[in-house]
Amino acid sequence: MNKLKLKKILEQFFIEDIGDRDVTSDSLFKSEIGTLTFIAKEAGVFAGEEVIRTGFSLLDDSAEAELFIKDGDRFEKGTELVHIKGNAAALLKAERVVLNLVQRMCSIASESRKAVDIVAGTATKVCDTRKTTPGLRMLEKYAVRCGGASNHRYGLYDTVMIKDNHISFAGSIARAVELARAEIGHTVKIEVETESAEQVQEAVQAGADIIMFDNRSPEEIRELVQLVPDHIITEASGGITLDTLVHYRDTGVGYISLGCLTHSVRALDISAKVKISSLQVQ
Amino acid sequence: MNKLKLKKILEQFFIEDIGDRDVTSDSLFKSEIGTLTFIAKEAGVFAGEEVIRTGFSLLDDSAEAELFIKDGDRFEKGTELVHIKGNAAALLKAERVVLNLVQRMCSIASESRKAVDIVAGTATKVCDTRKTTPGLRMLEKYAVRCGGASNHRYGLYDTVMIKDNHISFAGSIARAVELARAEIGHTVKIEVETESAEQVQEAVQAGADIIMFDNRSPEEIRELVQLVPDHIITEASGGITLDTLVHYRDTGVGYISLGCLTHSVRALDISAKVKISSLQVQ
Amino acid sequence: MNKLKLKKILEQFFIEDIGDRDVTSDSLFKSEIGTLTFIAKEAGVFAGEEVIRTGFSLLDDSAEAELFIKDGDRFEKGTELVHIKGNAAALLKAERVVLNLVQRMCSIASESRKAVDIVAGTATKVCDTRKTTPGLRMLEKYAVRCGGASNHRYGLYDTVMIKDNHISFAGSIARAVELARAEIGHTVKIEVETESAEQVQEAVQAGADIIMFDNRSPEEIRELVQLVPDHIITEASGGITLDTLVHYRDTGVGYISLGCLTHSVRALDISAKVKISSLQVQ
Amino acid sequence: MNKLKLKKILEQFFIEDIGDRDVTSDSLFKSEIGTLTFIAKEAGVFAGEEVIRTGFSLLDDSAEAELFIKDGDRFEKGTELVHIKGNAAALLKAERVVLNLVQRMCSIASESRKAVDIVAGTATKVCDTRKTTPGLRMLEKYAVRCGGASNHRYGLYDTVMIKDNHISFAGSIARAVELARAEIGHTVKIEVETESAEQVQEAVQAGADIIMFDNRSPEEIRELVQLVPDHIITEASGGITLDTLVHYRDTGVGYISLGCLTHSVRALDISAKVKISSLQVQ
Amino acid sequence: MNKLKLKKILEQFFIEDIGDRDVTSDSLFKSEIGTLTFIAKEAGVFAGEEVIRTGFSLLDDSAEAELFIKDGDRFEKGTELVHIKGNAAALLKAERVVLNLVQRMCSIASESRKAVDIVAGTATKVCDTRKTTPGLRMLEKYAVRCGGASNHRYGLYDTVMIKDNHISFAGSIARAVELARAEIGHTVKIEVETESAEQVQEAVQAGADIIMFDNRSPEEIRELVQLVPDHIITEASGGITLDTLVHYRDTGVGYISLGCLTHSVRALDISAKVKISSLQVQ
Amino acid sequence: MNKLKLKKILEQFFIEDIGDRDVTSDSLFKSEIGTLTFIAKEAGVFAGEEVIRTGFSLLDDSAEAELFIKDGDRFEKGTELVHIKGNAAALLKAERVVLNLVQRMCSIASESRKAVDIVAGTATKVCDTRKTTPGLRMLEKYAVRCGGASNHRYGLYDTVMIKDNHISFAGSIARAVELARAEIGHTVKIEVETESAEQVQEAVQAGADIIMFDNRSPEEIRELVQLVPDHIITEASGGITLDTLVHYRDTGVGYISLGCLTHSVRALDISAKVKISSLQVQ
Repeated sequence: MNKLKLKKILEQFFIEDIGDRDVTSDSLFKSEIGTLTFIAKEAGVFAGEEVIRTGFSLLDDSAEAELFIKDGDRFEKGTELVHIKGNAAALLKAERVVLNLVQRMCSIASESRKAVDIVAGTATKVCDTRKTTPGLRMLEKYAVRCGGASNHRYGLYDTVMIKDNHISFAGSIARAVELARAEIGHTVKIEVETESAEQVQEAVQAGADIIMFDNRSPEEIRELVQLVPDHIITEASGGITLDTLVHYRDTGVGYISLGCLTHSVRALDISAKVKISSLQVQ
Repeated sequence: MNKLKLKKILEQFFIEDIGDRDVTSDSLFKSEIGTLTFIAKEAGVFAGEEVIRTGFSLLDDSAEAELFIKDGDRFEKGTELVHIKGNAAALLKAERVVLNLVQRMCSIASESRKAVDIVAGTATKVCDTRKTTPGLRMLEKYAVRCGGASNHRYGLYDTVMIKDNHISFAGSIARAVELARAEIGHTVKIEVETESAEQVQEAVQAGADIIMFDNRSPEEIRELVQLVPDHIITEASGGITLDTLVHYRDTGVGYISLGCLTHSVRALDISAKVKISSLQVQ
Repeated sequence: MNKLKLKKILEQFFIEDIGDRDVTSDSLFKSEIGTLTFIAKEAGVFAGEEVIRTGFSLLDDSAEAELFIKDGDRFEKGTELVHIKGNAAALLKAERVVLNLVQRMCSIASESRKAVDIVAGTATKVCDTRKTTPGLRMLEKYAVRCGGASNHRYGLYDTVMIKDNHISFAGSIARAVELARAEIGHTVKIEVETESAEQVQEAVQAGADIIMFDNRSPEEIRELVQLVPDHIITEASGGITLDTLVHYRDTGVGYISLGCLTHSVRALDISAKVKISSLQVQ
Repeated sequence: MNKLKLKKILEQFFIEDIGDRDVTSDSLFKSEIGTLTFIAKEAGVFAGEEVIRTGFSLLDDSAEAELFIKDGDRFEKGTELVHIKGNAAALLKAERVVLNLVQRMCSIASESRKAVDIVAGTATKVCDTRKTTPGLRMLEKYAVRCGGASNHRYGLYDTVMIKDNHISFAGSIARAVELARAEIGHTVKIEVETESAEQVQEAVQAGADIIMFDNRSPEEIRELVQLVPDHIITEASGGITLDTLVHYRDTGVGYISLGCLTHSVRALDISAKVKISSLQVQ
Repeated sequence: MNKLKLKKILEQFFIEDIGDRDVTSDSLFKSEIGTLTFIAKEAGVFAGEEVIRTGFSLLDDSAEAELFIKDGDRFEKGTELVHIKGNAAALLKAERVVLNLVQRMCSIASESRKAVDIVAGTATKVCDTRKTTPGLRMLEKYAVRCGGASNHRYGLYDTVMIKDNHISFAGSIARAVELARAEIGHTVKIEVETESAEQVQEAVQAGADIIMFDNRSPEEIRELVQLVPDHIITEASGGITLDTLVHYRDTGVGYISLGCLTHSVRALDISAKVKISSLQVQ
Repeated sequence: MNKLKLKKILEQFFIEDIGDRDVTSDSLFKSEIGTLTFIAKEAGVFAGEEVIRTGFSLLDDSAEAELFIKDGDRFEKGTELVHIKGNAAALLKAERVVLNLVQRMCSIASESRKAVDIVAGTATKVCDTRKTTPGLRMLEKYAVRCGGASNHRYGLYDTVMIKDNHISFAGSIARAVELARAEIGHTVKIEVETESAEQVQEAVQAGADIIMFDNRSPEEIRELVQLVPDHIITEASGGITLDTLVHYRDTGVGYISLGCLTHSVRALDISAKVKISSLQVQ
């Protein structure tokens, strides 16, 4: 994770929530010290260490965060995840923004772990997509890794993805790959979306680095995989969910990409308790 | 909605996704014209007019958006929602970011409408919370209104919300309200969270503008509402979902706030089809 | 005050003044230590603690600010307000920007206190308006509170203000209030501008939260106030100055809003003395 | 004026005032067309053409501004200064921010003109200082020129200003000028603050480009000016106001710098009237 | 190229150069129309279409740019490259910033073309490095492509590059590749820096996507290339210049990366002539 | 140098290079401590202290930089310039950006020193131009001073430069100077470009502060200088390089401006070695 970028987006998020002042805490608190505790109200996989540390320190640079868990660890319902000690008003101001992020990240990590567990014991891996929340891609893709799953491309800039439109425009898969290869350099992979055995064979011939089977059934995928030599990576994509993932686990495909890991995020239930522990000596 | 702010956040989101270049479309397209169509794959309530218009025009200022639906309208599965005509590469670059936003916004509008329908026929209204996605509050709260529900406060800056910590720190509800009133001016409402009949009565005495019943059962709420004179607004809050909302609809409470409208957003299924319609004459 | 926002605007202001370099101090000083003292050249009410602390620490993070006064306190002519010890070049660079802000803030606090003193002994309060300096609203509204006066709305976003145009467009006050109420949610107050007894009565009927008497004489206000039940707040507005305020003090109106507190700010006379006390040991 | 910079700061100011939405106009207006007129309620000198044009076009890019006056022109009480035709909600959103700026700019231009008139008929000119409102320096210094007065340095970056601290630190005026000259290059002028005939002579010897007489009486200035050869510019500074300026007009000094032009700005009285003229055909 | 990003950086660059005003052109011009012509004073390869179009339109949105050349085309000494017609003051303000960029971009394109020509007739390609000017990477890497050369990774984010430190820390190339592969997903390539035949063989075994020969002589490279199977890309790197490139052209290596394309940029000689053609009718 | 501005641009540059993550170091390192050393591979003049200190501390605020050289000092090939101790991953992330800047700055300082040495022993000085890399002007002009040369104007905002277009538009040099003087105030110098003895005489009469001889031969300059009285500064400009500078050294001109100091920057050869020294105790 890029911590400079994290700091900048957290600043934006706090300004979104606090505006010019916190009309409640600024009216009632001065320099009291408090302790904030995050408690898991359901089990899951943790993601958010850096968001918590950086978030609270932005509003109170002497805040002390004690984390009882690390990114990627499982936790049970009832677990105390974090203690933060610091200026009470600062804790109350930071709480909602940090919680909004951490609940989403833990949820993504937990769903990712479920997906990983479903394909466990095979050579197949699961990965995410670009169906992330605008503005949160860095955090959401990080949470996917905390869950043990893998990242697909981060954006339009780091992997070529040749789809039906590109193919029909270029005239053929071979031509599309050739045009892209000429333009993008040797450090960027080229992935081709295919929908039939013919297209898979074309993509193999064209020298694709990754061949995606778009919206194919498990049975089809099992056969299409056979057409691809070992040094080319295969990927299944298109509407696969945690419910249907099990049907794809034994197809022999290299990667299964799951939009559902990030496009539909249920906030994992984590509660925050603040205790105003003492008056600060001025 | 503040369109200047919308433009700024859309620019950030496009830069997040495109980075320094779109390695695919920049390699394959030059100045071709295309048409992009958004089609609903499930029924819902629409939200996103301005995101669509502003989004595509940022990447191609001559793009023409034709919307077949307005914010707040219901649509059926299979409905063509939007046509955008413009530079093909620009359409392909903008598609995912716009879709990521519009799917979330339509989903929020649709869930909000479901909630509104459940309380229909009563004087009770449903509203949102601050449990929104960081960076997207303006859009998510707007989508809630598209669904016919109401907005709770936008941030820490526009309504005082006195919670247990504030009460115990101030010593009493009366004292907390008094301190806040002295500090914040007459244009800001003061809401007090209560958990018992005693607290409700204290809040009434203290002159709260809004009294919230925090995590109370429908039966309790029905009784607590009786303690509050008509000119004070009542609100039920705490873990209420679309499944349990029906139990609260006849409690007589003024507002029911639902974190679930925004904290857990399933992307509504909308697909995008691009057609490269013609070469642009240079 | 939102300290994250304060830091950001102070950075902008320093960059406005310093540009790429301070051609004087960068040429003459290296790492000398100095002490800067702010001395009041006239009496007033102080506002600016946080601007001073944050301002100097941005240019020298080891600068030590010792304040002999707190926000809201009165000071006499000749009072030493602040000592800052730190890098001499940093003190000289920060001095003018900080002083430009603190002089304005103290002036606003002092004028606000004068207004508060004029209405002292009545139940009437004075408040500010949106006639603030663009870019400085957070600071100027904070200074108003330091003077003991109250804040009106912070922007277009936190209180509905229905004026003549809205009324004539909607057709009636009742309709305008109804439309706004339907759109904005229960946490936002609705204020209605009125110019006659009829309009006041309409506004009462419409359920306005605040009724403003726009450009009415003290005599008119005294009568109009009678038309408004106790649970609705009243406000007098329109061209009232510190000179004319006394005529309104006994009208029984709830609030008197004064554009003059912020639209015309005379810099309070504070001088700065810098003493280069010693060479820093490297 | 740098229009790119103007656009950026206006965007910030609108976001400060509008936040996430205008709760009033967004509730009541859709796409109505209106006309806004600025009318002078007192006489003055105009400044603000570009702020008006850019300001309204940022919120409605089809808004049409018709200005009946140009920057630097005098106007009488009652003059219609500007008509803007455009989206009614956009006009109402932009009005306060634009007015807050234009009232300040016209006030500065008007005060500057008064100062210019006082010294008219002599070779002496008046200029401003760095005592401007943080964030508004470009606009305030522009307004000074609209009033016919001259600008002193824009910031710490464009002119060396050697003051008592620099002199005592360097050991002598000669040494301070020499050190600065060695560091800053030949395109930047060096100004020296002096308080006595000895210092003036030292500054002349040292090759200062501008010699300032700091807090000297008119009589002293008349004598000090004689010590300075023609090719060196002289300047009087320190607490001179529009009331005392007349005493300095015949001293023969080259420039008189007046902090009061910008440090204490009374908003010139300009009113805005909006007329909702017609419904826009959709 | 990402045009949204281009616009943002051009705005920064203009603000860097213009500051609060252009003291010369703002004093002398009002609304005159002029024509600016860029003329090549030496031969080269062009890069900069979009910088020119966007740059001038930012300062005058009605400016019309007529380009007589396209990105990637060669031009001779004396060629007129561009005509821009627009507001004279805007042209003069934009000229230096645009020219500073275009001269650098054309220089990079021209040097890249020279490198491409040297390896012409072989299967070897030349590419750039991350030794670009901070803040200009998007433009400089684009210019490299205009010259016909290829891009290496854009940043630390899009390709794994395992160097000696990583290898010694991980214990072996195999372990380093394995750790990276586990963390980064299937869309990102892994490149390994090697300095010996043993390391090359290890890298092949480890499944590297690209094997770099770091600071090896042409003779060594010729041998090392033999150790690498066809589906793995090879790259030579380390201090190779346009002068020594010829010695590497027949080594059979896949790519030769050249820091000199961007780390040392001589501004290509392009002159700008402005003609004030007519007065604009107001 | 303005350190607040430096911090902001360094943040931008790191985000350009790191993006959302460093796929290599983030995969391989956790909290190891390392030491990075910069070693000069060729002789030169140093510039970059503040870039190094601020740069590394931005990515690891506990990083400790030990510099063995100061800005402006000469160094020999083989000199160890800097040790940085800190988090290993942070050092590896920061290395390239810092090096890209420091190599350019040292190169500019070194070339500037060469130029200074060529004119040594005369009263003539060398200075830079506005032909700097967009976005890096503050750093590049600072590096020029480290090399002992002088800065010409920083931008369009701090010195008037009257060129042929301005002269022909105004009608005469006298008129152009008069117009500029009326507009810009007494703290800004006016420089006039001249190409003949007539123009030089006109510029002297017009009261120019600086007279530039544009593209004149050494012989011509020698004669033109005679036409200018001592209190007016003279400057030679136009295509002079380090190779031809010697011919101008004895012309008696005051300043010689050299675009080559910044428009064509060869990265000075500095290498970086990182040593992973120990595991950090968690």
